Amino acid sequence: MEQAWLASLVKRFAKEPGLSVPIGDDAAVLEAGPGEDREWVVTTDMLMDGVDFRLAEIDAARAGRKALAVNLSDLAAMGARPVAAFISLALPRPAARDLADRLYSGLVPLAKQFGVSIAGGDTNVWDNPLAISITAIGTVRRGKAWRRSGGKLSDWILATGAFGGSILAKHLDFTPRVREAVYLAEHYDIHAAIDVSDGLSLDIARLAEASGVGGLIFPKMIPISRFAKELALQDPSKGSALDHALGDGEDFELILCTHEEEARRIIADKNLDVPITAIGGLSETPGLWQMTDKSRKTRVIPKGYEH
Amino acid sequence: MEQAWLASLVKRFAKEPGLSVPIGDDAAVLEAGPGEDREWVVTTDMLMDGVDFRLAEIDAARAGRKALAVNLSDLAAMGARPVAAFISLALPRPAARDLADRLYSGLVPLAKQFGVSIAGGDTNVWDNPLAISITAIGTVRRGKAWRRSGGKLSDWILATGAFGGSILAKHLDFTPRVREAVYLAEHYDIHAAIDVSDGLSLDIARLAEASGVGGLIFPKMIPISRFAKELALQDPSKGSALDHALGDGEDFELILCTHEEEARRIIADKNLDVPITAIGGLSETPGLWQMTDKSRKTRVIPKGYEH
Repeated sequence: MEQAWLASLVKRFAKEPGLSVPIGDDAAVLEAGPGEDREWVVTTDMLMDGVDFRLAEIDAARAGRKALAVNLSDLAAMGARPVAAFISLALPRPAARDLADRLYSGLVPLAKQFGVSIAGGDTNVWDNPLAISITAIGTVRRGKAWRRSGGKLSDWILATGAFGGSILAKHLDFTPRVREAVYLAEHYDIHAAIDVSDGLSLDIARLAEASGVGGLIFPKMIPISRFAKELALQDPSKGSALDHALGDGEDFELILCTHEEEARRIIADKNLDVPITAIGGLSETPGLWQMTDKSRKTRVIPKGYEH
Repeated sequence: MEQAWLASLVKRFAKEPGLSVPIGDDAAVLEAGPGEDREWVVTTDMLMDGVDFRLAEIDAARAGRKALAVNLSDLAAMGARPVAAFISLALPRPAARDLADRLYSGLVPLAKQFGVSIAGGDTNVWDNPLAISITAIGTVRRGKAWRRSGGKLSDWILATGAFGGSILAKHLDFTPRVREAVYLAEHYDIHAAIDVSDGLSLDIARLAEASGVGGLIFPKMIPISRFAKELALQDPSKGSALDHALGDGEDFELILCTHEEEARRIIADKNLDVPITAIGGLSETPGLWQMTDKSRKTRVIPKGYEH
């Protein structure tokens, strides 16, 4: 859907009662009651055949896994520990049952890997392509959800993993950064976070804008995946490996903002299996900027998938 | 989807951790933490064009309203107070935006009526018919969710409203029994509940079976809607008004079980706007039975919509 319509939706429901975090972030947070020291975080994503994957080309198990994984990535982007998932399906006839079994065979191992309970859903059959809608629910310590809007001037921008070329496989088989999020939420003070679904540059720009600051990235420091390099070699006309890293999207890595000292501690932390890299910082000038080789700041036009 | 497959799903996920009520009831209940005196209740339903409504025949606003209403009915069936809803859409091109606006124009007034916050969702576009997936979340006092399985021998079976002929309009325009559920949960001890989505006889049979007892209904006491009578007049070959009441489904009324004294107090309660009627009781003999005119018990074959 067009960005303008989505923005109007977010604006329309920005002040709904009972929510610590309303519509428009990676997930919503339900207000805790008196005496409750945790809050529930809720996110939902719908994936469709022909849009988010092609069942003609892949095993449906990978589609089922992806449908859960994107939701877990949204919970991770809030610093939440996942608890339960609800699986709704619109299954095409005539092989609806076989397809449902394949979808579950992909998503159940992922649920087990991260201790997510399958708690409900709605299984339907129709004469149209597959749609999967999953809602995932988790918890954060009260008031501690990572919002996009919490970034502060001079914060460092950190990123898990590497970027670009996700279309070659990672968009289906990525590991949502649940463990990293739970660990970081427990041990560090993270100001703001977002997961990279639509594009590294676009999602950094969104976080910076939500935080009321600008973003400055250091292209040389951005971890570029070997798949981005592969795509750049295959067809140089479609951009460099860095272009792929900045704009491809569906990396499902986390972007995290915190102050310099905390950022340095995180980078040096030996308990993290996934590399965390400093790739830039939050600065005063609105918009997204990059530091060139010649130490000059130039504007970056955020690129990525606009829904 | 076939009942056997759904039953295997419920069995497979019956023991997932972190849930007070697992998959298989009208909604799931997330376990409260230490010191928390309420629990979160979560339900999700997916509705599709051509299956649950026909956009060629109705204003999309009614489809949007129905998609939220069925979820609120599920929360009511757990005795829960609704808090928030998450709206995911797969919208057909080319008029996706207009359709989304119509859907919201139907569901937002219902959300406001019952104090439900629109807290998130996922808006997508594709070249296939509309699918709407809504997740609704509410609260109950800790340990007080109404389960299907809580019915006890000799409980009375109560019903809100009237039954049958829902296809003529009510299946789109019904009022979910949210107020009644919240009021009853606050003032009375309800043992078990279910909402009538698939058919009065089928849903009573399900409640009785989940409670490990049988159900006995008194056909003369069942409130029959004027729409059931209209259908019976239109085409007597499709059954009597009572047949429609017992088997049509999509009434979205509540079936409630409690002991006789409490049942009598509820029926006499003047604070309820919707009539509540005693229509039977829970008894020892498994299965669903009816009391005939001649005071004989005969077997009832539960009828309704099997997904």
